[in-house]
Formats: sequence, C-alpha cells, structure tokens
Amino acid sequence: MKVHRIRKITGEPWINLFKATCMDSDENGEHIFRDWIFASRKKEIKLEPDNEADAVIIVPYHYDSKKRCKLVLIKEFRIPIRDFEIGFPAGLIDEGETPAETATRELYEETGLNVTKVIRASKPIYSSAGMTDESVVMVFVECEGEIKENNGTDEKISAQLYSWEELYELYYSNAKFGAKCWIIIDSIINKGVIK
Amino acid sequence: MKVHRIRKITGEPWINLFKATCMDSDENGEHIFRDWIFASRKKEIKLEPDNEADAVIIVPYHYDSKKRCKLVLIKEFRIPIRDFEIGFPAGLIDEGETPAETATRELYEETGLNVTKVIRASKPIYSSAGMTDESVVMVFVECEGEIKENNGTDEKISAQLYSWEELYELYYSNAKFGAKCWIIIDSIINKGVIK
Repeated sequence: MKVHRIRKITGEPWINLFKATCMDSDENGEHIFRDWIFASRKKEIKLEPDNEADAVIIVPYHYDSKKRCKLVLIKEFRIPIRDFEIGFPAGLIDEGETPAETATRELYEETGLNVTKVIRASKPIYSSAGMTDESVVMVFVECEGEIKENNGTDEKISAQLYSWEELYELYYSNAKFGAKCWIIIDSIINKGVIK
Repeated sequence: MKVHRIRKITGEPWINLFKATCMDSDENGEHIFRDWIFASRKKEIKLEPDNEADAVIIVPYHYDSKKRCKLVLIKEFRIPIRDFEIGFPAGLIDEGETPAETATRELYEETGLNVTKVIRASKPIYSSAGMTDESVVMVFVECEGEIKENNGTDEKISAQLYSWEELYELYYSNAKFGAKCWIIIDSIINKGVIK
C-alpha cells in the first residue's frame, strides 16, 4: 500500500478533511486505487510521513511540602461530546517549542502549577490513526504550587488534585474521561499505587 | 456553555465534519454564539450527549500451555499517518453487539486467537474530544491459540506476541505507536511487570 496523493477537500480554519488516494493490490496482484478520507488540524499534509506532534498531554504528579503525591486532572466542557470531560492538562505545541516547554507553559496556564521535573516524554503517538493524523507527546512531570485556574488564557477549565483514594472514587463515578487519562488512572487503580 | 445546534457540513460516507453552534457568555455575562467544527464517524449527531461507543480496543494477554503471558499487538499500515503503526486489535462495534462480543469477534478476525476471559472493560472513553466525538471501550481480555491472520476479512494486519523483554525492545525502537497502546506498554515497562 502506498499513498499516491493527498488533497484537502474542505476549507475550514482549524480542522479539515483530506482525501488520500492510495495504490494497493487486489487478490490477483493487480494494482487498484482507493480513497481514504481522514481529519486533520494541519494546513497541508505531505506524502512523506513526519514525526511532528500536534500537541502535548501532560501527566502531572503534584508534590506538596510533605512530599505527598497527587495526580492533577482537569475538567472541561468539550463541544464535540456535548458534555464535560475529565482529562489531563494539554495543549497545542507552538512553533519552535519543545514538548517539555509546551508542557511547562500549558500546565501553568491551565492550573497555575509549576513543573519541577520532567520525568519522561513519549515520542509522537497517534490518537486514532484510522481517522486522523493527530499525534501527541505524553509528558510525565512532577510539579508544585497551588491550583490557580486560567492564567493568561480565557479557557474555561477547572483543575483538581486527586489522591489515590479520590482517584478510585472518580474512576467508579459516572464522569466521562479522555481515553489517555482513563488508561493511566486504570493502571494506577489496578496496581494500587500512585506511580 | 450550551450546544445550541449541530449540523453536518460535508457529505462523505465514513467520516464527516460537523458544525456545532454554542451559546456561551463573554466576560460581561452577555450571551455570545460561537461555532466549533469537529469530525465524526456518525451519520447524525443529536444535541443530547450519548453514551454509545464507536469501537472497541482490545488489550489481549495471551497465555500458552505453560501459562506464560505475552501481550498481543498488531502492525497495520495507517493511511492518515502514511506509515505502519503498532497498536492493539480493534474494531467498530456492530449494531446490537456488546463491547465484549465485538472484542471476541475482532480478536479472532485480526489474529485467530480465542478470548478465554474478559478481565475488565472501560466505559466509553474519548480519543480526542476537542476534535472528534469518537469514543471507544477498552476491553482487557485473556486469550489462547495460535496467531493466524485475516480470518474472514481482507484487512492487512500482522499480529505478534510480545514477552516483557520483547516489549522493552519494541518500546525503545523507532516504531510508531497508537497512543492507547503506547501508554499501556509504558505502564508495563515502567513497572517491570506484564500485568
């Protein structure tokens, strides 16, 4: 399978559909062309695969003055699902920023907390590669400070610290979760440790 | 914030853009309307939030006759990222199926393996709720049998079993990963256990 051509078929400012025409072979080994439509935030898409992430997702472990660890989560109204969603702080990578820099900036903007250590970061990983090229870098950080929302942005986001017991309660509540966030909470809950 | 109206603005068969018009309030408390465009696999979208998942993602722990456990991963060419991606077996939920039924059917179709136990399943969780309403159910299963690809479908997918040592090598390779898959491998690697 080879992607032969990609063209933008809508003209929206922030998200568009793209049509990829691919050369494949049928069961007799004959070449056939087929189209695949997907969504992207990109302005244009090259044929060559790239390794640039759209956004970072921050997994913030907060330590207080007694070294007690809590997980930082945000709650945000998400228009596509017409409901509030629990997830991690996140944000689009600005031009020229490293993922660690985006994580530090966005964590402060969304929660008022300060990154004290970057624990590890993923490479770009794909949110749902059958329907979009969206990729994110997961940045695991330690942070400190007091929650203070909406610092320098008008985003309507509420942030909260969760102990293991509070995470357990949240996990079994009827809250809606972002997939990446649920999987990490699930791995914490099912092992009984915060980290 | 309240979603006032949603309408489909493209006419593609499998994925479309939708425009949601929302009523929000500005800093003076005045009502303002704004539009938000997102992608969806759905034919139509109601204003009321729903709880129906589009797809399942299967996290399959394979046990051999000596009770050794390996993780089952698939490798698939993904047109939107113009490259191969490592991920979990997955598939769209057919009408009338439970997520556990979809998981059992899709695991067999994609790998030839048989589910012996459903360990746990998430509720619907959201792949990237800023840009799409796509939701998935994560189904953790135990399975057995021999890998045998493409059973009853023409999907070009290769499946492989990974021991902890093999996962470690894969994690540090330059392979591209689906986000949900990477997070689970990361949680395994960083705790040194398969489960």
